[in-house]
Amino acid sequence: MSAVGVALLGAGNVGGGVIAALGAGGSRYTATVGRPLELRHVLVRDSARARPGIGAAAVTTDIATVLGDPAVAVVVEVMGGEEPARDYIARALAARRHVVTANKEVMAKHGASLLALAEQHGVSLRYEAAVGGGIPIISPLSRDLLANELTAITAIINGTTNYMLTGMARDGVDYAQALAEAQRLGYAEPDPSADVEGIDAAYKLAILCGLAFHVAVAPEDVARSGITRLGARDFRYARELGYAIKLLASGRVVDGGLVASVQPTFVALDEPLARVDGVLNAVQIEGDLVDRVLFEGSGAGPGPTASAVLADVLDIARDIVVGRPPGAAVTPRPVAVHAPGAARARYYLRLTVVDRPRVLARISGVLGDHEISIASVIQAETDEHARTAELVITTHQAPGSAIAAALEVIRVLDVVVEVGNVLPMVGGARA
Amino acid sequence: MSAVGVALLGAGNVGGGVIAALGAGGSRYTATVGRPLELRHVLVRDSARARPGIGAAAVTTDIATVLGDPAVAVVVEVMGGEEPARDYIARALAARRHVVTANKEVMAKHGASLLALAEQHGVSLRYEAAVGGGIPIISPLSRDLLANELTAITAIINGTTNYMLTGMARDGVDYAQALAEAQRLGYAEPDPSADVEGIDAAYKLAILCGLAFHVAVAPEDVARSGITRLGARDFRYARELGYAIKLLASGRVVDGGLVASVQPTFVALDEPLARVDGVLNAVQIEGDLVDRVLFEGSGAGPGPTASAVLADVLDIARDIVVGRPPGAAVTPRPVAVHAPGAARARYYLRLTVVDRPRVLARISGVLGDHEISIASVIQAETDEHARTAELVITTHQAPGSAIAAALEVIRVLDVVVEVGNVLPMVGGARA
Repeated sequence: MSAVGVALLGAGNVGGGVIAALGAGGSRYTATVGRPLELRHVLVRDSARARPGIGAAAVTTDIATVLGDPAVAVVVEVMGGEEPARDYIARALAARRHVVTANKEVMAKHGASLLALAEQHGVSLRYEAAVGGGIPIISPLSRDLLANELTAITAIINGTTNYMLTGMARDGVDYAQALAEAQRLGYAEPDPSADVEGIDAAYKLAILCGLAFHVAVAPEDVARSGITRLGARDFRYARELGYAIKLLASGRVVDGGLVASVQPTFVALDEPLARVDGVLNAVQIEGDLVDRVLFEGSGAGPGPTASAVLADVLDIARDIVVGRPPGAAVTPRPVAVHAPGAARARYYLRLTVVDRPRVLARISGVLGDHEISIASVIQAETDEHARTAELVITTHQAPGSAIAAALEVIRVLDVVVEVGNVLPMVGGARA
Repeated sequence: MSAVGVALLGAGNVGGGVIAALGAGGSRYTATVGRPLELRHVLVRDSARARPGIGAAAVTTDIATVLGDPAVAVVVEVMGGEEPARDYIARALAARRHVVTANKEVMAKHGASLLALAEQHGVSLRYEAAVGGGIPIISPLSRDLLANELTAITAIINGTTNYMLTGMARDGVDYAQALAEAQRLGYAEPDPSADVEGIDAAYKLAILCGLAFHVAVAPEDVARSGITRLGARDFRYARELGYAIKLLASGRVVDGGLVASVQPTFVALDEPLARVDGVLNAVQIEGDLVDRVLFEGSGAGPGPTASAVLADVLDIARDIVVGRPPGAAVTPRPVAVHAPGAARARYYLRLTVVDRPRVLARISGVLGDHEISIASVIQAETDEHARTAELVITTHQAPGSAIAAALEVIRVLDVVVEVGNVLPMVGGARA
């Protein structure tokens, strides 16, 4: 009974999780597949470091060694980063190896061409682990929800920022303190920009939108704003208004075009996503038949990521054993990508204004000029010394472009000291 | 471009949903599959009734007509009930037709033998719609979570009872009122026993446990108690203690054996399942790699069910078009099925007792004799006229068998008027 040969590219945190899971699950996996999985090579940057659990697998720093071994059927890429990961995946596919990757950046930027390359060479390219860690989401979108005309994806897909936002809501701390705490615990990187600026979430959203709406979405198509401007006061107002603040990744079909964004968003407390706390991820999908489905779980970490990686490996290995060819890809249908201003939402505006009469009248006048109507106003925290006041306005539904245009005017009013934050709102009262 | 022929067995609520979805999604489905789907036959009990949307499909009452048409590649069974559905499925498989079914009863009782029959004839038998309506759950268990050693399934998989329990919690009404309301709205059948006695949920749980734990689980292996004994007072005590009451379907591996039950359960309010309200369903799965994942959505209705049915049809049709054979089934591993008493839980006990001194001492003495320790006691609602009092006791972790044995003794104590309800508790304080 010959084994199914596997090579692992990358032996960091996730690679270690895959190695450990292969060790722990060995006999079960053999029973599932019908043949053993054999880890034949582990490609690393530094071959001198000791790596427990690798067993008989040869540690190498050379991709040519891996692809020169005819017994390798499946290449697992868990190195992360754009290059050389993309290059290695492309070379593995061209060498007719099935590839399983956890690489959101490569799939977001190069997914379409790599999937075409896989199809051309009659092999599979699978990437369940690229989004949502252990939560099955790529496979449900690719297959289980395929009968639906999907209309919206709304997701919390960055655990680092969700951990920070949960802490800010709970402890009343500002962004800087929440970041320091997350870094201390290892949830945030020393350079946190990929997480806090929404770059990581935008990669993942581009992948999800591509699958859900059958459209090529580049990461640049995702309008993106990070969490760095959020202050403790925004969370106080959110609670007062009945909302949580979440970094929401959102893709929606509006007037036949896709609007995709990653931005901090007021989420009404009765929405399921408002209660997704800490490092958890969740993806909510809306479709014509299914209404809403929600998938929730651990979005990162060696165990959950290994779960997704090995699900893909096992599926490929089972097909190899019975000689079943890769499934056909779904042909994309053309969907336009709209500018984010096309989407309508209610908005939360926090402004610092001069504390004198008729300020609100002037601001609401500008909003009215842009056909934006006000739902509620909170005037709070007058600073008697500076003679300023804080004004929190929530609006009824308005196009993002109208809000942006109104803010251009408001920003330069002589009564406005600063535009603090402007965030969309979802759920709760409809208008 | 020849079509993929489909036959539909059953044109009720779900069948109507499938017909409507096939009509609405036609051109998309053709693009997805690479060939059109053609609905060729609709098998009904009464061919005289008018059925909109069927188009050119021939309405028939004879399964032989359907299986005699060589152009039928996929048979969709949405009749419900055990017979003749099981017989028709078996005949379709034996005639080398792929089968998609939404039938939980048939799959729970006969799934293993029908799946073997499908494999023997080289065709697929798919049943995503049998559990959780539009929520992808069969496919994630069959494939996406396969790398895990799964340890527990905890689910709300009956929308009728969840709707009733949500109403009882919100409105403070008793079981009979909640049932009448659900029947008035069409959420509950005139004979509600399959829902309120947990029979429907037990079928679904048997299917989920079979997949998750690779074990043959018969519906009789599921310990089952319904919601008919729940009163408004149980919900009051639950809220006071920080819990919701849900009809939980639970399968767990305990000491290498499976314990499966469907029973009303106290669920701590900070558990995700406590917030699954109304007709929603949710399935929570725990595994060694993935920790916890939760799937939530509409568990019934023509749209969600059609979503699941057609996902299976599309997947099969795509394989047919490219000549891809059915995937290999995972070989079951032997797992014993334990009696439910083997599982440990905390318990809620509501007793009506004689209102006199030392009653609590006697009851706690009996619990102590069975090594059950008390976590909290609420003595409430003294009925001065009847000279009785209500006693609510929560326990620390104890085996279900110990609770049952202690109750045998408590039930016949002269100070005990009635044992009101005894329910397990999940989440919240651990002990």
